[in-house]
Amino acid sequence: MRAIVYTAAGGPEVLALAERPDPVPGPGQIRVRVRAAGLNRADIHQRRGEYPAPPGWPADIPGMEYAGEVDATGPGASRWRTGDRVMGLAGGGAQAELLVVHQDTALPVPVGMSWTDAAAIPEAFLTAWDALTFRGRLQRGEAVLIHAVASGVGTAAVQLARTMGATVLGTSRTAAKLDPLRALGLDVGIDTSRGSFAEQVVVPVHVILDVLGGPAFQDNLAVLAPRGRLVMLGFLQGPAVPQANLGMILRKRLEIVGSVMRPRTDEERVELAAGFRELVLPLFETERRKDGRTESEGTDRPSVVPSFRPSVRPVLHAVFPFSDIAAAHAAMERNEGVGKIVLTW
Amino acid sequence: MRAIVYTAAGGPEVLALAERPDPVPGPGQIRVRVRAAGLNRADIHQRRGEYPAPPGWPADIPGMEYAGEVDATGPGASRWRTGDRVMGLAGGGAQAELLVVHQDTALPVPVGMSWTDAAAIPEAFLTAWDALTFRGRLQRGEAVLIHAVASGVGTAAVQLARTMGATVLGTSRTAAKLDPLRALGLDVGIDTSRGSFAEQVVVPVHVILDVLGGPAFQDNLAVLAPRGRLVMLGFLQGPAVPQANLGMILRKRLEIVGSVMRPRTDEERVELAAGFRELVLPLFETERRKDGRTESEGTDRPSVVPSFRPSVRPVLHAVFPFSDIAAAHAAMERNEGVGKIVLTW
Repeated sequence: MRAIVYTAAGGPEVLALAERPDPVPGPGQIRVRVRAAGLNRADIHQRRGEYPAPPGWPADIPGMEYAGEVDATGPGASRWRTGDRVMGLAGGGAQAELLVVHQDTALPVPVGMSWTDAAAIPEAFLTAWDALTFRGRLQRGEAVLIHAVASGVGTAAVQLARTMGATVLGTSRTAAKLDPLRALGLDVGIDTSRGSFAEQVVVPVHVILDVLGGPAFQDNLAVLAPRGRLVMLGFLQGPAVPQANLGMILRKRLEIVGSVMRPRTDEERVELAAGFRELVLPLFETERRKDGRTESEGTDRPSVVPSFRPSVRPVLHAVFPFSDIAAAHAAMERNEGVGKIVLTW
Repeated sequence: MRAIVYTAAGGPEVLALAERPDPVPGPGQIRVRVRAAGLNRADIHQRRGEYPAPPGWPADIPGMEYAGEVDATGPGASRWRTGDRVMGLAGGGAQAELLVVHQDTALPVPVGMSWTDAAAIPEAFLTAWDALTFRGRLQRGEAVLIHAVASGVGTAAVQLARTMGATVLGTSRTAAKLDPLRALGLDVGIDTSRGSFAEQVVVPVHVILDVLGGPAFQDNLAVLAPRGRLVMLGFLQGPAVPQANLGMILRKRLEIVGSVMRPRTDEERVELAAGFRELVLPLFETERRKDGRTESEGTDRPSVVPSFRPSVRPVLHAVFPFSDIAAAHAAMERNEGVGKIVLTW
C-alpha cells in the first residue's frame, strides 16, 4: 500500500509518499481502505519529532483519523461487512491506503455524507464532545469559552455546545474568522488581536476548552466562575506559565483537566465511540436528511451556513490530495482557515 | 452568650472572650450549645485578616466545626430534639457557647464519644472524605499521597484511605510525626526534611491530597500516574509557583481540583452530611463499640493506637479551654503535634 511517511524530523519536506506492507487485521479488528483522512496539529508536532506515536500504532505513518470502506475483517470481527462506510480515530497510521483498527472503535459514516466531510468528523467532534460532556460537564444554561474557535475542534465544539443549550464564547487571533462561526452557534466572538481575552469576557464562564496552554493559564483561571472547569486540549503557545498563582483554584474550587485522544486505550476508544454513536451521530443525520443530498451530490467545499437546530456538520477549510501532503502541512501552519484540512487519495 | 472574637487583624493577642447576643434559630435551623470546637488553620488565616467569613455567618466569631447539644429548634426543624448530641461544620461562629446551623447539616455524635473527640471529627473527616471520594475518586488498589499527613485532615485521610483499600503515602517535615501514623494505616512515610518528596515517592500516585500549594505543584504533577488527580485543600507554602510547566497535565491527562469547605452552601453541606452519616459514621461506631467505652469513660488524651479495620478515630494533639484561645493558636502555629487541637468550655 501507499502511505505518507516521516523520513526524518523537520519541516514539511521530510514527508514522503512511500510503499509499505499491507497491514493485516488481527482478532476483533477491521482493515479500512482509507478514502480521506483529516490532518491535525499533532501531525505537525509528530513531524517535528516532538510527538511519537503511542505503542501499538505505526511509528512512521501519521494520521489519527480516517474515513473509508471496510476492506477486510480479522478473526471474530463481525460488526461490519466488507464495503461498509466507516470513520474513526486511530493512534497513528491513518494517512495510508489501508489502516487496521479495532472494529468497535469505528463509526458508521452518516448516510449521504462525502468521504472528505466524514474524515473531518472524528478528531474534531469526538474531542469536542468528550471535552464538553465528560471532562467539562457542561450544563444547559452555562457559558463555555472555546479558544481557537475557528479550528476543527473549535468549530465542532461551538455546534455541540449550542445543542447542549450553552452560551458559546470563542476566541481567535483573526477577527475575520469569527463572523462565519456565528451561523454555527457562536454567541460572543472575541478577537484576541485586540488584547487579552480576559478583559473581553464579560460573563462568568463555567467551562473553558483550551488549546493555548501556559501563557493563557492565569487568564483562564480568572474568567472561570466558581466551580468552573478548565479542559486543556493542547499547547499552541507552549506549556510554560510565566507567573503562576494557584490561589483561584482553591478560592473558586476550580477543576483543571488535561485531555488528549491519542494515548487512549482501545477500551477507552470503544466506550467513547459507543456514546458518540448513540448521542452525536444522529445530529449529523438530521442535517443530512434535511439537505436531501446523496453521497454523489456531496461537495467538499467549505460550508458554514445556518441549519435548523440541533444539527451539526463538519466544517472544512481545504482538501488536499495525499500527494500534496507537504502543501497541506504548510497550509495548517499558516493558520488561515476556518475548520479542518482533509487529505484524500 | 460568651464567644471568641477577633478584635483586630494580627497575632494571637487579638483574640478575646466577649459577650454576644444569643443567636436565634430560623426556619429549619437548630441552635447548638457548643461543648467543644476544633481549631483550624483557617482560623489563623482569619485572625490575620486574610480569610473573612462567608456571607450569612458571624463575621467576628471564628469556628468552623463544633460538637454540642441541641439547645433550641427553629420553625419546622423536627429532625432533632433538645438535648440530642450533634456535631458538624459551620461557615463561622462555632467558637461560642451557642451556634445556629441548618438542622440537616448536623451529624449525630457517635455513641460513647467524648465532646472533644467529636469536635475533632467534622472538618478533618468531612474534608478528607470529600477529597478522597468525590474530588479524588480514589479506588481500591490505588496509591494516595497525603501531604502534611500529621495534620487533622491528614490523620483522617490516612484512616479513610486505608478503609478504601488504598496504599497510603504521607509527607511530613518532622520524621518523628510519621511513626505514630503507621498504626493508623500509613504505608510509606516521607520525611521532607531529607529532601524533595518527589525523589522519595517510588510508586505512581493516583491521588494527592495537597495542602502545600504552589512550591509543591510541579513535583505533585511529576509523581502522579497517568489520569492521576491532584486535590488542592490549602496553601501552607503559598499559591505562587516559581516555574510552572503544564506539559504533564496534558501528557498524563491529569486532573487538578480545588476544594474548600467554608464557602459551600447549606445545600452542599446537607448533601455531604447525608453521605457521611451513611458511609463514614458507622466506622466510628464500630470502633467505639469494640472499645466498650461509655461517654463518661471517654478520655481526651491523644490516642494513636491500632484498631481492627475498617474503624477510624479522631486524633487529638491537644485540648485547650476556650479561655486559653491565644495559647491554642500559638500551639497550632508551632506545628508540633499530630492531629487536631480542640477547644472546650
